[in-house]
Order: sequence, then C-alpha cells, then structure tokens
Amino acid sequence: MKAIIQRVTRASVTVGGEQISSIGRGVCVLLGISVEDTHTDAEYIVRKILNLRLFEDENGRAWSKSVMEQNFEVLCVSQFTLQCMLKGNKPDFHSAMPAALAQPFYASILDNMRSGYKPELIKDGKFGAFMQVHIDNDGPVTIEITSPPASIDPRQLSKQEKQQQRKEKTHSKGHSETGREKGTLRSRHHTKASSGAEGDVSSERET
Amino acid sequence: MKAIIQRVTRASVTVGGEQISSIGRGVCVLLGISVEDTHTDAEYIVRKILNLRLFEDENGRAWSKSVMEQNFEVLCVSQFTLQCMLKGNKPDFHSAMPAALAQPFYASILDNMRSGYKPELIKDGKFGAFMQVHIDNDGPVTIEITSPPASIDPRQLSKQEKQQQRKEKTHSKGHSETGREKGTLRSRHHTKASSGAEGDVSSERET
Repeated sequence: MKAIIQRVTRASVTVGGEQISSIGRGVCVLLGISVEDTHTDAEYIVRKILNLRLFEDENGRAWSKSVMEQNFEVLCVSQFTLQCMLKGNKPDFHSAMPAALAQPFYASILDNMRSGYKPELIKDGKFGAFMQVHIDNDGPVTIEITSPPASIDPRQLSKQEKQQQRKEKTHSKGHSETGREKGTLRSRHHTKASSGAEGDVSSERET
Repeated sequence: MKAIIQRVTRASVTVGGEQISSIGRGVCVLLGISVEDTHTDAEYIVRKILNLRLFEDENGRAWSKSVMEQNFEVLCVSQFTLQCMLKGNKPDFHSAMPAALAQPFYASILDNMRSGYKPELIKDGKFGAFMQVHIDNDGPVTIEITSPPASIDPRQLSKQEKQQQRKEKTHSKGHSETGREKGTLRSRHHTKASSGAEGDVSSERET
C-alpha cells in the first residue's frame, strides 16, 4: 500500500462541478491499494498518516507535531494510479487492487482512520468517481509512505516501533547516537523511505 | 531521484502571497533529489516526465498521450522531503542532497527539461523558498517515478526502452503477449513501479 501525503493549508474534492468534501489545515492523502495488500498494510499506513510529525510546534520547531496533535484534518482520496508499473512510457495498473475489492477495503481503512482519531476530522473523496482534487500544498511538504513487505512480522515491527517511540520520548530534546549504534533494524527492513524505525539522528532541514 | 507527477487542469506557486508561476493543463512535478543521484538519474526522470502517457487522445482513449504530444505544460517544484526516511514517526532527510549541491543540479534538470521540450512550457517554483503549491489534480491521476538503481547500465536501459517503444508503435492497437513471453527484463530491474520497460499488456482501467 502506498500513500502520498501532502501537508496542506486546505484541500477539497469536486465532482461534476460540485464540491463534495473539504478540509482546512492538515494532510491530503492519495492512497494506492495493491492486489497484495492486507489489513496489516492498512493498519501501518493509517498509523503513519495520523502520527507522522509533519507540523511545527508552538515554538516553530519543524517536524514536531502530528496531524492528530494539532487537531488538524485529513482528506483521503483513493488513487489506484499509484499502483503503477511502467511499460515503456505507458502506465499499467494490473498491480492495483480491482475496484470491486478495493472499494470495501478502502471504506474499512477510512473507518479505521476515523476510529483512531476524531471521525469528523477525516474527510473522503468519492470512490471511483472522476474527481478534481484541489490541493494547497504547504511548503511544499510531500512524503511517500509504503507499507513494509509482508516478510516482516507485524508484531515485531510494532514492538520495534514502540521501542523507537519510547526512545524518541527519552531523547526528544537532543540528538543521540544510541539508535545508530544499536541500529541493525534497517538491514532487516525494506530499504524504502517508509521502512520504519531505525536510528535516532534527525535532520531538521527546512527547504 | 524520485518524482511525484500529478496530472492537473492547472497549478501554480505562491511565495509570500505573490504568485510566481502558473500553468494550465499538464503535470505538476514534485522532485526529490537524493545524495546519490547523478545526471543519469536526472535524464531518466526528465524523459519519463515528458513522455509518460497520462492523457487521453482525441477519441477519449485513456493513457494515450504525453504532456509533449498534447502541447501541455509542466510545473516542476523541488521537494527534498520526498527523500525521507522515517525514524518512528519523525521524518529524517539525511538522504536528500544538500541544498548547496541540489540547487545547481536542480537548475540543470530544468534546463534539460526545457531543451527536451518547449522552454516556455516548463515552469519552476523558487528553490529553497517557502512556497504554497496549488495543485488541481485532475482525476485524480498521480504517478510516482523513481530512477533505476545505478547497477543498471543506462545504455542498456535506453536500448531496452527504444525496443519497447518500437514494440508499442507496432502493437498500439491491440494487446500482444510478445513482450511478456520475451520479457525477462523485470528481474534485471528494480522491482519498483518505475522500473521501465517490461512486457506489453496494459490495463486501461479508469478509476
């Protein structure tokens, strides 16, 4: 499962000239479900969308607060084209989950997101419709998240993430090399940006 | 190098309340340069941006025409946050190319894009500035492209792509299994969506 998360000042969805959905500050998520995705992938993606630290804190410190911590909104739109393989210059979407399966799955993902946060702050597009998605990308800040491959035991990942979160709390005011020294997680994970916990040294570079 | 390509009806960039750039129909590209990227990565990404078949033809056949074939515009914005590793829920950008190197490299990528198409149809953001990027995503259609890993000989890739393009022209009106039968390319490529030529059977699923 793949999510493109854009930090926004506002975003909305229009279908047939009529606005069906809108949010103010928060994140606009374009969500691509693959044929191989399960609820484990969905849980990972939902957790990341809600907890990713994309916002400043009250002192202007970047990458400090999640959408939930700021009481911001989420606009989530299904986007099968993210599950794309290129055949030369032509996109091929055989790896996207077929719509008949993806629609109820997508609905369950939205339910999970609502029950993990405040239901009234999670907005949706219209599955399968031809939409205009208006995105005011703030920064811009765009993050791609991919769920870890199935070979990783999700219980183990969850434990690693909990350890990481405890470590973050302990060291949140400074930089520590502890994670890097002990960090052998990376080699056991997918090598993508979204591979989850590893190390502790963060860059707070602002554009 | 990673590019998030959104098909748009229009897009624009505002800095400090002032609009500095805008396009009508075309693609809005958010471009993330990694510390390891070279001109080979840039050439691949520029070629894909200009040649990806994201638009309908005059008969409404989806995934038929590129931005160049339609005489549409490109708005390209540098986006280092795409080169993100997650440390728990905190983004880390150590794998993004540092700004001092990325700025001239990014400028050269824009130059390549302009010389590969029509210069006046390629628009830019403002490197390093805090921008608002307004994106009217049309469909929505969003494609993620990643340049192939360095282990692939770029000359070989180019040859494979040319073969693929010839094949597409020959078989453009029907579906052929030729590519799939002969297609051993995939195992030699990166397994990502952006891995380039492989097979010939395309889905034209719409939403």
